[in-house]
Amino acid sequence: MTPKGFTFAGVRCGLKNKRNDLGILLSDRPAVAAGVFTQSYSRAACIDFSRNAIADGKLRAVVVNSGNANCCTGLQGERDTLRMAELTAKALGLEAGDIAVASTGVIGQLLDMSKVERGISDASKVLGEDPKPFMDAILTTDLVEKQAHAQIGDAFIYGVAKGSGMIAPNMATMLAFVATDADTSGFDLDRVLKNAADVSFNCMTVDGDTSTNDTLLLMANGASGYKPTEEEFQSALTEVFTSLAKQVARDGEGATKLVEVRVTGSENPTKIARTIAESPLVKTAMFGCDPNWGRVLMAAGRAGVPYKLDDVRLSLFAADEEHLLFENGPASFDPKRVSTALKSDYVVIDLTVGEGETAVIYTCDFGYGYVRINAEYHT
Amino acid sequence: MTPKGFTFAGVRCGLKNKRNDLGILLSDRPAVAAGVFTQSYSRAACIDFSRNAIADGKLRAVVVNSGNANCCTGLQGERDTLRMAELTAKALGLEAGDIAVASTGVIGQLLDMSKVERGISDASKVLGEDPKPFMDAILTTDLVEKQAHAQIGDAFIYGVAKGSGMIAPNMATMLAFVATDADTSGFDLDRVLKNAADVSFNCMTVDGDTSTNDTLLLMANGASGYKPTEEEFQSALTEVFTSLAKQVARDGEGATKLVEVRVTGSENPTKIARTIAESPLVKTAMFGCDPNWGRVLMAAGRAGVPYKLDDVRLSLFAADEEHLLFENGPASFDPKRVSTALKSDYVVIDLTVGEGETAVIYTCDFGYGYVRINAEYHT
Repeated sequence: MTPKGFTFAGVRCGLKNKRNDLGILLSDRPAVAAGVFTQSYSRAACIDFSRNAIADGKLRAVVVNSGNANCCTGLQGERDTLRMAELTAKALGLEAGDIAVASTGVIGQLLDMSKVERGISDASKVLGEDPKPFMDAILTTDLVEKQAHAQIGDAFIYGVAKGSGMIAPNMATMLAFVATDADTSGFDLDRVLKNAADVSFNCMTVDGDTSTNDTLLLMANGASGYKPTEEEFQSALTEVFTSLAKQVARDGEGATKLVEVRVTGSENPTKIARTIAESPLVKTAMFGCDPNWGRVLMAAGRAGVPYKLDDVRLSLFAADEEHLLFENGPASFDPKRVSTALKSDYVVIDLTVGEGETAVIYTCDFGYGYVRINAEYHT
Repeated sequence: MTPKGFTFAGVRCGLKNKRNDLGILLSDRPAVAAGVFTQSYSRAACIDFSRNAIADGKLRAVVVNSGNANCCTGLQGERDTLRMAELTAKALGLEAGDIAVASTGVIGQLLDMSKVERGISDASKVLGEDPKPFMDAILTTDLVEKQAHAQIGDAFIYGVAKGSGMIAPNMATMLAFVATDADTSGFDLDRVLKNAADVSFNCMTVDGDTSTNDTLLLMANGASGYKPTEEEFQSALTEVFTSLAKQVARDGEGATKLVEVRVTGSENPTKIARTIAESPLVKTAMFGCDPNWGRVLMAAGRAGVPYKLDDVRLSLFAADEEHLLFENGPASFDPKRVSTALKSDYVVIDLTVGEGETAVIYTCDFGYGYVRINAEYHT
């Protein structure tokens, strides 16, 4: 189910305890590449390096480490990022400019380059078709692996992701690496990637905190020989991205459920949906299985987007059933019955504030686990 | 210490268990009035009513209930707000237009007007100079009473507030009522009030969630005969507002400390400070007494305000000492020592990202208590 011409490796070099912490993704031929990166002004050196690496639209490999974000580490951090690319290039017989670098983990500590050097050397020797060691090497506080794939004609799109908070403890970051053997020549791959990211990863929030190291990379090597239409490819890529984004949201730190916030309205429904999805009061209500529609309307009301309460309709979809909570005033519902339905691991908050488009934001609930993970983790 | 010509009452009418839930604040003569209200589009009927009541710049009394926000209650809610004003006016020998109405508590339930009617009748008979019964009548999940005062010449400014979250559970809202016997004739009281609110209540966040019922009202009746300069009055009013805002932040749901975020920079330091103050990762680190400077820089970095990491300096003030964490790279500090200092109930996060103005935002830490209060409270 992985695309032709790509190989994967993941090894343990000692940056983290007991788990893989260094991975390589390699295309056996030049691949067209596109990416999006964190907009943070506290971003890590690898972000600027990788943005430059794909500036020519091409890439051969990605090297990634977890356990250390190599962020806020100054000039030495920049040198270490470059060194990671050089070591990988040397081990694979490539140029440093063919390599993208990603790091995730603790902020503000220098990389132990002797461990990284050994890891790159080891990983370069075990490249193979099984993506699992690579997928494991990028995880930090994630509880589950995250992968998704789609088939178009004879081609595959395969992606892995990590993230358990837009940023989680110091150890976090959203990373996603997506490979395809589809022939995308002639496509504006940047645009296709951004279109797909805008309705998937950019519609996901765990805690509203954006990482210093967020990286999403797409490599297309054409090895299948299959050339989809741009529409066909766009659709499949969006499917893969959306699946990965939902998996990241569902695995939010301390989360017990995936919460999908759908808002329909004429004016900026996305802003209303995002405000609801980021509201600690809505998220704790979801954790507590409380059909507390007042909090949803409170959050909607503070989004800065005008509407009339007379036009508002709110329902929850949970346990395969719609539960109407508000329409021209509070609806009549059995709180205990809805509360039981909310124990489901997938809940949709469906709010209409007027006629128009529907925006969707993916998030999770917010419980003791988030506080435990983030308050009891020490630098 | 309370201003001349004002009397207070608070009684228990049964909207809430075992605590006062209906209050009246009365001036014995016409008072100049100014106010600011929630911007929410899900706002309660009392907001529009009170905004109209002060449109002529005058007020005689405020009636407030806790235990029920009378919000999202449609036409009947509007009628009940008007009825509260009419009942209060009748009991006090005034007109309904002389009265402002405020409500706080659960959203989406109709007021039990027979209880409210009895409460207004009872309260109107016990008006006196002791503000405590009134102060108690506006509290919900608050753990402590919040009052502040200032003296200018022969005049007093006295204020009470409630709030334990910008909005807390369904039961919440920030309310503040400030009375003064200073002679403010000739002042632009709206402007003075907004100036003071902008650097106090508007610089405070507990969870970023803005209530449907937030109300801040100022009444100035001139009874002291003392006429301060506008600058003198502005300064004293700002002092009272800031004290109340800090008290509200410190009493945030589940909070163990007041956190003051100071950011200095040339471009929009307020936006950076607010982003840090609202970051769940920063707030959980403060709860955990973790000098996790990476999270502060992460939050600053995502505020959308440009800066260079080379210009960044970050320190914490806790337990009467400055602890430098970052300056041209990670500073050398003893994490255990700083962690011990962070057990203080007052911490300042002081971030410089460039030369310029300093913005201050007041907030609190974020721990298990917030989740407990908000997840285990059921509608």
